[in-house]
Amino acid sequence: MRTLNVDLAERSYPIYIGTDLLKQAQLFAPHIVGRQVAIVTNTTVAPLYLKQLRETLQGYEITEVILPDGESYKNWETLQLIFDALLRDKHDRKTTLIALGGGVIGDMTGFAASSYQRGVNFIQVPTTLLSQVDSSVGGKTGINHPLGKNMIGAFYQPQAVIIDTATLHTLPERELAAGLAEVIKYGFICDEPFLTWLEQHIEKICALDNQALMETIERSCAAKAKVVSADERESGVRATLNLGHTFGHAIETEQGYGVWLHGEAVAAGTVMALEMSQQLGWITIEQRDRGIALLLQAKLPVVPPQGMTPETFLTHMAVDKKNINGHIRLVLLRDLGHAVITADYPADILHNVLIANYSTITNSI
Amino acid sequence: MRTLNVDLAERSYPIYIGTDLLKQAQLFAPHIVGRQVAIVTNTTVAPLYLKQLRETLQGYEITEVILPDGESYKNWETLQLIFDALLRDKHDRKTTLIALGGGVIGDMTGFAASSYQRGVNFIQVPTTLLSQVDSSVGGKTGINHPLGKNMIGAFYQPQAVIIDTATLHTLPERELAAGLAEVIKYGFICDEPFLTWLEQHIEKICALDNQALMETIERSCAAKAKVVSADERESGVRATLNLGHTFGHAIETEQGYGVWLHGEAVAAGTVMALEMSQQLGWITIEQRDRGIALLLQAKLPVVPPQGMTPETFLTHMAVDKKNINGHIRLVLLRDLGHAVITADYPADILHNVLIANYSTITNSI
Repeated sequence: MRTLNVDLAERSYPIYIGTDLLKQAQLFAPHIVGRQVAIVTNTTVAPLYLKQLRETLQGYEITEVILPDGESYKNWETLQLIFDALLRDKHDRKTTLIALGGGVIGDMTGFAASSYQRGVNFIQVPTTLLSQVDSSVGGKTGINHPLGKNMIGAFYQPQAVIIDTATLHTLPERELAAGLAEVIKYGFICDEPFLTWLEQHIEKICALDNQALMETIERSCAAKAKVVSADERESGVRATLNLGHTFGHAIETEQGYGVWLHGEAVAAGTVMALEMSQQLGWITIEQRDRGIALLLQAKLPVVPPQGMTPETFLTHMAVDKKNINGHIRLVLLRDLGHAVITADYPADILHNVLIANYSTITNSI
Repeated sequence: MRTLNVDLAERSYPIYIGTDLLKQAQLFAPHIVGRQVAIVTNTTVAPLYLKQLRETLQGYEITEVILPDGESYKNWETLQLIFDALLRDKHDRKTTLIALGGGVIGDMTGFAASSYQRGVNFIQVPTTLLSQVDSSVGGKTGINHPLGKNMIGAFYQPQAVIIDTATLHTLPERELAAGLAEVIKYGFICDEPFLTWLEQHIEKICALDNQALMETIERSCAAKAKVVSADERESGVRATLNLGHTFGHAIETEQGYGVWLHGEAVAAGTVMALEMSQQLGWITIEQRDRGIALLLQAKLPVVPPQGMTPETFLTHMAVDKKNINGHIRLVLLRDLGHAVITADYPADILHNVLIANYSTITNSI
């Protein structure tokens, strides 16, 4: 097992990464203060891992909350089911919520924990690669609004993150790829050597080699933890973690949540950010194509959906949380491994990027 | 104008108390960082003060959100109207929400500010006595759940509280009395000299004498600010502010939110806490009756509603946020001016308090 620490003063917490950690009661115990716990999971994950976690936590008063699965349920109505169960079973302020599932479960459970009785403890047990390398680290929690993704939420840190790599063996291939979009992102924004390592190990990772997975997760979490520690509330550098996300969110919102997986939208959005960085002269065509090639090897989409017009993109991008005073701020690359956030670019270059023919660009790679 | 400071390190903020402060643009300006503001108010307050505030804030991009009035609307559906308006008008993270109204508006606007894009600024402009002396100070925000009051929310501090005493001249008499329940509470829990001062000035206060009102509000806010500064997240002494509230919340929940005003329920609940403190031998019958007499002079109910059985009380009290591991914790008085919080009392005394005949007790005073 490997342990990383997310350094946030009195809100610091450990990330444990290993195989079969779901079975290890002694990992959970130090992070549960009361005798009540609520396991929040969904209809897909419950049949796979709920029984195991329940056995590990025997001795506590356990409430189980099984939510419908999918980004389309990341809304108030579903969140309310968590509050209903907590109140029905009379959970008090010493309760601990446990998020067993992917990013949607983690985000909703975290927001529920932040707002139930104005704040109770929670533990993240992410079961998808995406949530293991991204959403379970950093304390961003929340739900979607019909007019925007993650528009309602809180910055709220868990007591611990427990990552059991064994859960990846039941993960659909498409979701594994979606997780790799965020993994590759860390290379682009702040860790060029990791990008090289990924190019060398992408096949092992896709084959679920355990050592390769542990290394992938640890390096990703370390990159994210470092950025988050420097800027917990996203007033500066943390926003670079959103490489590809402004374009990607527009894709997700337009298609309807859950049609494209988050990581898939981020992958296509990252290609757009690479293209823009190249058009600004900040990276070369070769660097752009190296990035696209890695995303392709990870079996990710690299072309935005047909029918997305520049106007559609701009409408959705206008409500991005990074924007200040109406300017669309974008995360772009000054070099591979060096992201910047900027609203200072010629409008016609953004327009060119929105109308570029990505099928032509990527077909030749 | 008087200025108090709520001392919470980097979350400290000022409270301004005076007449016609709604007209003073220079009070607002230092606490608004962006160019967007959203004034959240209700159908009762809007016709009285919205036009004035809009004029004071000319030069900003103003979104107006007018909610239905009443505790029964302090729920997710109404909160959603705030998010809808903010997203429709594309408010970004630099926006400032302004709560113009009573406690319900303040609590909902504060919770909306805490969770919109994971946190934006807000200013409290309380227009009822209750919100001026209580809910606008201390950072408790939230909404009700069908199974419990204020069960969903956040601790979130405003940038400033601007109290215009002129607004009390349009306040219904019943609501003025409800505010006095919380004012008198400060005397009971931590300021016996204030209790004596109130006994001497209660008629002037009820007649809306401006000097008496300013003094009342300042001493109340100072008492609350002191307690909150010592214990922002209610891990200890802050809970004493809930004198009468555990009984009172049970009354509110059972009657349905909004049938009894919050302050009215607190007044009847305070009488029950006085009775229990007396039955425990902690205060004398004379002290109990002195307290009840002051509540009566403030035109407050001192008898719980007919038909509330001990079982009804206990059912609602079992979900109180102060409870830990199933014990009902109560705020009681060791003496006038000295509150304690305890779960260590004989069950039969609580039972006696729940079945006591309050009409008989109070009729003789």
